[in-house]
Amino acid sequence: MEYSFLDLVKKVDVVPYYYDKKQHDQFKSSVYTFVSHDGSFTLGYMLPMVAKEFERHEDIVRVDNTKRQVYINSCLDSFELRSKKLNQLAKTWYDEGRFEHLKGWRNELYTIYSPEKRPYMQLERAFCPLLGVVMYGCHINGYVVMPDTGKIKMWVPRRSASKPSYPGMLDCTVAGGMGDRYGCLETVMKESYEEAGLTSSYMLKHVKSVGLISYLYQYERGTFTSENGFVQPEVEYIYDLEMDSATIPRPVDHEAEDFKLMGIEEVVRRLKNGEFKHNCAGVIVDFFMRHGIVTPEDEPDYIEIQNRLHRRLPFPTR
Amino acid sequence: MEYSFLDLVKKVDVVPYYYDKKQHDQFKSSVYTFVSHDGSFTLGYMLPMVAKEFERHEDIVRVDNTKRQVYINSCLDSFELRSKKLNQLAKTWYDEGRFEHLKGWRNELYTIYSPEKRPYMQLERAFCPLLGVVMYGCHINGYVVMPDTGKIKMWVPRRSASKPSYPGMLDCTVAGGMGDRYGCLETVMKESYEEAGLTSSYMLKHVKSVGLISYLYQYERGTFTSENGFVQPEVEYIYDLEMDSATIPRPVDHEAEDFKLMGIEEVVRRLKNGEFKHNCAGVIVDFFMRHGIVTPEDEPDYIEIQNRLHRRLPFPTR
Repeated sequence: MEYSFLDLVKKVDVVPYYYDKKQHDQFKSSVYTFVSHDGSFTLGYMLPMVAKEFERHEDIVRVDNTKRQVYINSCLDSFELRSKKLNQLAKTWYDEGRFEHLKGWRNELYTIYSPEKRPYMQLERAFCPLLGVVMYGCHINGYVVMPDTGKIKMWVPRRSASKPSYPGMLDCTVAGGMGDRYGCLETVMKESYEEAGLTSSYMLKHVKSVGLISYLYQYERGTFTSENGFVQPEVEYIYDLEMDSATIPRPVDHEAEDFKLMGIEEVVRRLKNGEFKHNCAGVIVDFFMRHGIVTPEDEPDYIEIQNRLHRRLPFPTR
Repeated sequence: MEYSFLDLVKKVDVVPYYYDKKQHDQFKSSVYTFVSHDGSFTLGYMLPMVAKEFERHEDIVRVDNTKRQVYINSCLDSFELRSKKLNQLAKTWYDEGRFEHLKGWRNELYTIYSPEKRPYMQLERAFCPLLGVVMYGCHINGYVVMPDTGKIKMWVPRRSASKPSYPGMLDCTVAGGMGDRYGCLETVMKESYEEAGLTSSYMLKHVKSVGLISYLYQYERGTFTSENGFVQPEVEYIYDLEMDSATIPRPVDHEAEDFKLMGIEEVVRRLKNGEFKHNCAGVIVDFFMRHGIVTPEDEPDYIEIQNRLHRRLPFPTR
């Protein structure tokens, strides 16, 4: 089967919109909503199996099975308390081997934000998808404008076959999650060196902030009874990196197996063949649209694609 | 007062989101929804004063004051019938001097689409805002990369003082609505010549499709009892035009009074001073973000701005 660009975008922005009332209601009635300690805002969508596990921890959360809501306990009224108590619980679950997801424990904290865009708590990275809270990352499109033809080629790595997630799939030139200690540009620098051997001085000179994509992902669409149905709202900051043809990315941490400089036709073919990791496909379609490679003239779903790649999430963000 | 970039975006994307439940409900209960002949999809948000006027035309629409919905009559079951009957009524209202808006009658048809992205009907341009249906346009950012500094300057026109809408305000280099006879690129060519004297051959060589902005505009926020509260969902296709410094845009049809090549600092100052037409401000903020001029490092509302400039509209689009 050959995927259209919209098919690829729908694999990233999976959760139904409220306009599609029937599907949206069905989705909402299949998950629990994760709510702030004062009940004033929502933090994420959680699977019933996680809510059920939470039921035994009333000092941390209150589970309302009628309203299908999980409230952070109102006594956890500070950033420090919330972060401490929730991470302790995650650690217990990890020690008990309770969720597959927690086996990927990273010792890396991700920040969750309030509607005022202030840090509300910090949680272990591997815990976040279980709660369905917003996560952040950066993606970099490394490309070369060929001196002879003026055409664009993109540097595309293949993910290591030993990576726990999406092994062997094609990826963006560089991509990485944003931990608590790093801003966007710092994440870009750090990951560009680790994943592609590109130095900070090279990056500072050539990298350009160009926007973001945001979407409501569900790992396995419509799955609510297994961990694989976790919901993940994400914001990925996008950077373009126009590279000279003499600079060759090379893996340092070996998260990537190899890099290949691909012409647009090859990238399109491999995209439509489903060879790219889901959100990287979204990043590349966005790249194509910003660079006039995909235009309103030849893409019938141009508007829907643009909108779904910039979804306003139903939760507070940075 | 100095506007932030988010303030400017909120002046374009005005209608509350459904997440802001209270404001959204208030908005919804202040307008009528315009519904397709078979009741299967919504077409726009209409002011009560327009719905009231429709009540006297049961052969064309059915008004449900309880549900606050205006249905196209079910017997208007073809593109031709709907277009003909609705435009006839608009013409009658125009002849009777019934709405201020219709005084701007253009003899220009705009296409309204079904959920399958097929033409559903075509309506007189000046009639569309009264019905609150989606309208389309193209905006072009003309800019020069200064050979000496490498910095970007933008070509900014001032709207003629005699234009009926937004007289004297600053504008994008070129902008125009998309009538039924023209696709995006055709509109770009046509308007670029009329507004800036740029030839088709120059445009074809230099113009680049780079995305779109979409939003739910209301001319006077929160106004529902006068025509000035009309709701306008819009999609504006965006094009970048990198120009050499020898090419000077000059008005042909004199919709623009003059063009000035402005440095980014001046554009920012005039934006924050509220001198740009509302949707042009959105187009320029989007330009700044795509060109690394506004970045996540220095813009606290980066995510919200990106999302609101790419709003998924609650109506079918092209």
